[in-house]
Amino acid sequence: MKILLTGFSGFVSKHFLDMMNVKEPGTEIIGIAREQPTFDIASFENLNIKFCRADLLDKASVDKILSEFQPEYILHLASVSSVALSWQTPYESFVNNTNIFLNVVEQVRLNKFKCRILSVGSSEEYGEVSEDLLPLAETYTLKPVSPYAVARVSQEMLSKIYAEGYDLDIVMTRSFNHIGPGQKENFVISSFAKQLIQMSQHPSGKNILIAGDVSIIRDFLDVRDVVEAYLLLLKNGKSGEIYNICSGHGRSLNEIIQTLASQLGINVTVKTDPARVRPNENKKVIGSNQKIREELGWAPKISFEESLADILSYWKNKLQEISS
Amino acid sequence: MKILLTGFSGFVSKHFLDMMNVKEPGTEIIGIAREQPTFDIASFENLNIKFCRADLLDKASVDKILSEFQPEYILHLASVSSVALSWQTPYESFVNNTNIFLNVVEQVRLNKFKCRILSVGSSEEYGEVSEDLLPLAETYTLKPVSPYAVARVSQEMLSKIYAEGYDLDIVMTRSFNHIGPGQKENFVISSFAKQLIQMSQHPSGKNILIAGDVSIIRDFLDVRDVVEAYLLLLKNGKSGEIYNICSGHGRSLNEIIQTLASQLGINVTVKTDPARVRPNENKKVIGSNQKIREELGWAPKISFEESLADILSYWKNKLQEISS
Repeated sequence: MKILLTGFSGFVSKHFLDMMNVKEPGTEIIGIAREQPTFDIASFENLNIKFCRADLLDKASVDKILSEFQPEYILHLASVSSVALSWQTPYESFVNNTNIFLNVVEQVRLNKFKCRILSVGSSEEYGEVSEDLLPLAETYTLKPVSPYAVARVSQEMLSKIYAEGYDLDIVMTRSFNHIGPGQKENFVISSFAKQLIQMSQHPSGKNILIAGDVSIIRDFLDVRDVVEAYLLLLKNGKSGEIYNICSGHGRSLNEIIQTLASQLGINVTVKTDPARVRPNENKKVIGSNQKIREELGWAPKISFEESLADILSYWKNKLQEISS
Repeated sequence: MKILLTGFSGFVSKHFLDMMNVKEPGTEIIGIAREQPTFDIASFENLNIKFCRADLLDKASVDKILSEFQPEYILHLASVSSVALSWQTPYESFVNNTNIFLNVVEQVRLNKFKCRILSVGSSEEYGEVSEDLLPLAETYTLKPVSPYAVARVSQEMLSKIYAEGYDLDIVMTRSFNHIGPGQKENFVISSFAKQLIQMSQHPSGKNILIAGDVSIIRDFLDVRDVVEAYLLLLKNGKSGEIYNICSGHGRSLNEIIQTLASQLGINVTVKTDPARVRPNENKKVIGSNQKIREELGWAPKISFEESLADILSYWKNKLQEISS
């Protein structure tokens, strides 16, 4: 296999490489990102990896890399994926999701490259959700309510046009919340895990966690199950189709906090900071993964408890490294 | 009034200026376009017009013009509005519809300008249409099927985000097919009118018009009624709302050809060129104008026959000018 990996320096990419190193030895990978990866590419000893620092907004760079590498597959992970950040910088959110994708598919079209593209999208595209229509199937009407969500819906509409109108081989996802070791702490579960470990290491008697609305329910999937789905879709997904990538289960943030605390053997009290409660936020978002299960035989392999335990281990090691 | 007019050098802008010159003397207008207008701005003697040649993709230019002029209203007409062209150059279609609009609203947001924006969109946003759901109301689910349509839906989604999320004062339209004197001949009715006049002036006995599928039915509205709707929406439209701009009537291309021929007193035979028949084109598209009628009291004033007669007059004069 010969894969171009955009968003190479990110969390999902790292886990994709971990998986490929075991499952698909000999794979050639060219990684693109604006930032140097923090991981060592030589550590993936079974893969043949090259990294190219480039901005996908720069059409000439995209063209050059595609022409030189001629990938069979493009896994388009590149994204500025924070909803909160998209409200602060909507222009940047739009161009760094929609326009970067447009540059990739347009160069593939213009050069008539034969390759399969996996266009990674987001559950945020669903936007405003009616609880009586859960779990969300791919046929649900999209009502995007943030700049990030709009950018992702635009990307998906472009994917369909390039697939149906120009016969490009594009498979699309709507990926729900990821969790897993190595996720940055601006993501909620990662942040909780880090804070709870710090509490467990400095017992003061007052284990108070400040959070937003912890009653909201989301569909969390371990990143290692996510990347398995991506590999399956690259190999066997149907062109022009959209697939939810999700666990199919809803968990409240509070349930997650309590499970993490129980794994650490501590008690924790959650205090709500009204400033962190987002207005008009959906109470409950759960996806249906029926389509990818039935069409491709995918199923999550990592239990919720195992995910949380691995996230705690990651932070234990990380905090030890920092303090030593 | 102080209006910034994007797409200043175009067909709709010219008719907007004609109307403003009569209805709103004293209005200050700054026009932006990439191309110099072909009309003489001094001819609008009741208006105070400045023209600024600029590209809306250039954020610095947009910022400078907005800061210097501080408009009360922005009528955003700028667009590369051809569906056919969008299939040839999808990248250009996207950036010259969606990204130019994003640049305008983003500069308004960043500078906290207080002004009302009319975001002109297109009936193409509806895309694939079920005939049993005609006429199309604004609540109809969008299924865009061309690069141009995707660009317009993206623009509209951004409009909603900027209106609802940032409190910008934005009114949106979905404008159906325009007709009227001065329209370029890459638009179907204008092209028919020109060819029929040439036939009437060179009677050969064989009046054969080569066309695509002339059985398709569309909703045509005179551009002079369109610009009246735009002025009303700038003044009294509801912020965050979308309005169809249409006649509410469907006319087949064949009916239009026969009406034009009858006004010219000639007979014409239509021959179908299979190369001009677009695959998967909707047979029938008709809009509902109930919302703008009921909320704003707008109604079309120019009859269909009058529109066609004026288009014929325009081409008679134009062809005379060219030949003399």
